[in-house]
Amino acid sequence: MKLSCLQENLNKGISTVSRLVATKGTLEILSHILINTEGGRLKLSATNLEIGVNYKIGAKIEKEGGITVPARLFSEFVSQLPEGKINLEVKENTLYTNIGDFKSNIKGLAVDEFPLIPKINTKKTLSLKSGELKEAINLVSFAAALDDVRPVLSGMFIRAEKDKITLAATNSYRLAEKIINLSKKDIPKKEAIIPARSMIELARILDDPEKEVSIYLNETQVIFETDDVEFTSRLIEGQFPDYKQIIPSESETKAVAPLSDFAGIIKVASLFSREAAGSVTIEVKQKGKIEAISAATQYGDSTASCEAEVTGKDTEIVFNSQYILDVLNNLSGNRASLELSGKLNPGVIKKEGDKTYIYVIMPLRA
Amino acid sequence: MKLSCLQENLNKGISTVSRLVATKGTLEILSHILINTEGGRLKLSATNLEIGVNYKIGAKIEKEGGITVPARLFSEFVSQLPEGKINLEVKENTLYTNIGDFKSNIKGLAVDEFPLIPKINTKKTLSLKSGELKEAINLVSFAAALDDVRPVLSGMFIRAEKDKITLAATNSYRLAEKIINLSKKDIPKKEAIIPARSMIELARILDDPEKEVSIYLNETQVIFETDDVEFTSRLIEGQFPDYKQIIPSESETKAVAPLSDFAGIIKVASLFSREAAGSVTIEVKQKGKIEAISAATQYGDSTASCEAEVTGKDTEIVFNSQYILDVLNNLSGNRASLELSGKLNPGVIKKEGDKTYIYVIMPLRA
Repeated sequence: MKLSCLQENLNKGISTVSRLVATKGTLEILSHILINTEGGRLKLSATNLEIGVNYKIGAKIEKEGGITVPARLFSEFVSQLPEGKINLEVKENTLYTNIGDFKSNIKGLAVDEFPLIPKINTKKTLSLKSGELKEAINLVSFAAALDDVRPVLSGMFIRAEKDKITLAATNSYRLAEKIINLSKKDIPKKEAIIPARSMIELARILDDPEKEVSIYLNETQVIFETDDVEFTSRLIEGQFPDYKQIIPSESETKAVAPLSDFAGIIKVASLFSREAAGSVTIEVKQKGKIEAISAATQYGDSTASCEAEVTGKDTEIVFNSQYILDVLNNLSGNRASLELSGKLNPGVIKKEGDKTYIYVIMPLRA
Repeated sequence: MKLSCLQENLNKGISTVSRLVATKGTLEILSHILINTEGGRLKLSATNLEIGVNYKIGAKIEKEGGITVPARLFSEFVSQLPEGKINLEVKENTLYTNIGDFKSNIKGLAVDEFPLIPKINTKKTLSLKSGELKEAINLVSFAAALDDVRPVLSGMFIRAEKDKITLAATNSYRLAEKIINLSKKDIPKKEAIIPARSMIELARILDDPEKEVSIYLNETQVIFETDDVEFTSRLIEGQFPDYKQIIPSESETKAVAPLSDFAGIIKVASLFSREAAGSVTIEVKQKGKIEAISAATQYGDSTASCEAEVTGKDTEIVFNSQYILDVLNNLSGNRASLELSGKLNPGVIKKEGDKTYIYVIMPLRA
């Protein structure tokens, strides 16, 4: 391999792929990134065996080839270099770099030791804007289970059908569902469960909201592809719970409050509820208030309220405060709505006026 | 105690003092902050038994008194509250707070359980501008030893005499000395060794460079005082090394280079020198270059150079790269000078044109 490219492009590519690299343990090769030439560009690749990422940058290629190099050293090194044209050359498993007055060589491993990131040969399932996909991932992914006790619950359900994609995640105590409407009307039905961790990494990588992302889905893998990134994840096998049945179809009480005020009172209540596993009592009052009450503990107690537009009857319910904060911290917009039907039924939080997103929380027994 | 003050002042005061609070282990009372009324203001206090900080804020006091409350809870709580007037009242070791629609009570401990932060009755030693003291601490403190193997080396030496203060620190492999010239000419000679950790905390607290700081020094304690902060530290007993003797009086080679270029080549060389305990060879060349070379290791090697104005003869020396980066990362200004006298004598780094600061590094044997 012998080529030149711009330090600023190389640096961006390395920082995009190197997040995936294993930092310790496991195989040495997994702490490396693969760099090689492909289709007239320089391709950087990293994988943790669950996710694989390829990032392509423009390069002037004199000789095709490749090498793998330790990700941490290469990433710190390139980030310290000045901007401008950098020359890269591989000789006998060593990468020689040269830019201005900086000359280095980094010992690597042969390309064929690097695990293959699988390619998909199926047809494109659909495509959409990066920004829409990223927003949807951020609104849904936190609701997944953090552990793998029930693997399907650590995943994000994705369904493409007709003119929309549905994303959903649940840890069985709370559920988030987001629908993205598409301009195409005839997308064939496909479903999959993608690890939520993979989707969170994908959202971090999608940095230009205007870019088009194509999705390719088969029985075991999914690929998200833009003009410079290919992001591959394995799928989770199994049946996602039939979550639609727990979404309440109507409510007895509805309160609409400014997002930041609502988050503020829950945050204060949560500080006093650590001993009580985060449980906070929420009272919605017809006279126009949401009140968050944390029961007395060894540290003290707290009552905080904010103004709200309330319809329906007075009610109260006990929730895990963190579950409320998770959604309020991710919602955009000015106002959020809280819909309740007594203390035993699930509550619903939405962004005011947005029918494409719903967040359901199961009540705690007070 | 019964009083009102502004949430924004209370929040600033708590965040200033609560950094000192022990987060685990030790005595429960050390994880608390003390709040009480004094001289018509509200005083917040925290101590880790080595350092004590008092911070005073304006308050409208209806009834004198005080309490101690858990620092973490109180600090997170107040930071979440809206701006404006907050009412505080103590009844039976409980602090009642009330601002807008937020009503809380926090259980505390009696004031007399809180360790006394000693007061000094000596006369003021001197005073100077916060900004000057903070800059000096930042230029000197990192040179102290991180461990307490030789306690005096974990301290910062301070000497007040005539018209100046001298601050110095050394871990016996490198030394930093900063002189602050004062307008007063007749300051009596006083010396002390203050824990470098204390000085680093002090620098963090001094946030307004224009504020006057008064220093009070006796045999065992030092106090730094502004109009709202009193910062007390114990002193370290012992004799600070007679470091003046290791400061070279002249040099054979001098190179002056742009600070960021110089730091850039050392940083790159340091990446390749981890196996070699950070050792980097520095060559200064009459033709106008500083070159940083890291010897080949299992990862590779690197040569990087930057332009410099060089006087005197060609030379080379081996330094711990981290020791060079420490000073370059803290120097302000555009250009730094490196003065060398062969590979066996200590090197000197200064900010160009600044006679008040000197940094000396002992060479490594190559």
